[in-house]
Amino acid sequence: MVNETDPSATRTGRRPGRSGTRDAILESARGLFARQGFDKTSVRAVAAGAGVDSALVHHYFGTKRELFVASIALPIDPSDTLERVLSADTDDLGRALVTGVLGVWESDNSDAVIAAFRTMIATGDTGLLRTFLMQVVLRDIAARVDEPAGSALERVNLVATQMSGLLLSRHILKLEPLASMPAERVVDWVAPTLQRYLTGPLPTRSSH
Amino acid sequence: MVNETDPSATRTGRRPGRSGTRDAILESARGLFARQGFDKTSVRAVAAGAGVDSALVHHYFGTKRELFVASIALPIDPSDTLERVLSADTDDLGRALVTGVLGVWESDNSDAVIAAFRTMIATGDTGLLRTFLMQVVLRDIAARVDEPAGSALERVNLVATQMSGLLLSRHILKLEPLASMPAERVVDWVAPTLQRYLTGPLPTRSSH
Repeated sequence: MVNETDPSATRTGRRPGRSGTRDAILESARGLFARQGFDKTSVRAVAAGAGVDSALVHHYFGTKRELFVASIALPIDPSDTLERVLSADTDDLGRALVTGVLGVWESDNSDAVIAAFRTMIATGDTGLLRTFLMQVVLRDIAARVDEPAGSALERVNLVATQMSGLLLSRHILKLEPLASMPAERVVDWVAPTLQRYLTGPLPTRSSH
Repeated sequence: MVNETDPSATRTGRRPGRSGTRDAILESARGLFARQGFDKTSVRAVAAGAGVDSALVHHYFGTKRELFVASIALPIDPSDTLERVLSADTDDLGRALVTGVLGVWESDNSDAVIAAFRTMIATGDTGLLRTFLMQVVLRDIAARVDEPAGSALERVNLVATQMSGLLLSRHILKLEPLASMPAERVVDWVAPTLQRYLTGPLPTRSSH
């Protein structure tokens, strides 16, 4: 028989409060996502690390992606934005990406997004941020730009350099005039950079 | 008469130890540089804030720029690198800048540079980092790229977005393959971005 508010209580013999269980799951998830990345982390392993049943993880957090979003304290699921970005033509992916990401940063959730980013840098949870960028935000985009074959990760890494620095400079350092610049103008500046990284020619000097 | 190790002792009547005085000067400098920026902060004001004489500030730290470098805990003075960058033709400034900056990041001082950057974000000393970027690193470069007149700050802000995100992605998040990429290839990828920000056409959509 499962307790409504904390089904783990009867299964593990422990009787932590609801928030204690949630926190234990989040802590387990953060550790695993940071060390192993998104793909190699199973909900079962997160549950085991927290000493609870997988069903409880799903009960509290939904899908693995939703658990990840909760574990990095993002107030929103990036899936909707990503879907919109991915619906763009490949030739317009740079503009769609910066438009979509700016939309998130400059939404009502802006403070929480910035706090999450800053906390991950400050606390040294860089594994989480790396996982988020490469395996959640940029993975589906990478699949679109692997031309020539094998270049996709390099391309999306470069996109990450531009976008992470834009977040840092505009929203954390608040450099002026950048911080006060209309989003449309930021898009006009940055979209060609992203597009070149995504679909432009590779540097001719070899990567040895 | 001035004490060899701490000339302030006789002037102020206080007898702090040498490191106590140095720390007081650095603390005063950090606060003023962060709040007022580099130009509006005088050595005299830093000295006053620390309760010591200006001569003592010069005695311990040298010039105002050297004091600033010490106050952000940078292990090296960026002046030499900047001079080399500024000797490049304006058409080649983007390549010279990323080459020079990568040289500093990937020198023996790399760890200290990265620690300073990270600490400034973590502790919320973003005023110091903003001052460093805009008034120490990018000011002389801005003077070279103010075409059309009034566009220089916008241009160097955009350079800051790309370079800060490169430091973050390559050296702190250590995204792969970027983190293992030869510096020459990073230069080949990033130089055209910086050059466009510095001397390319402004976006046609207006900035209102």
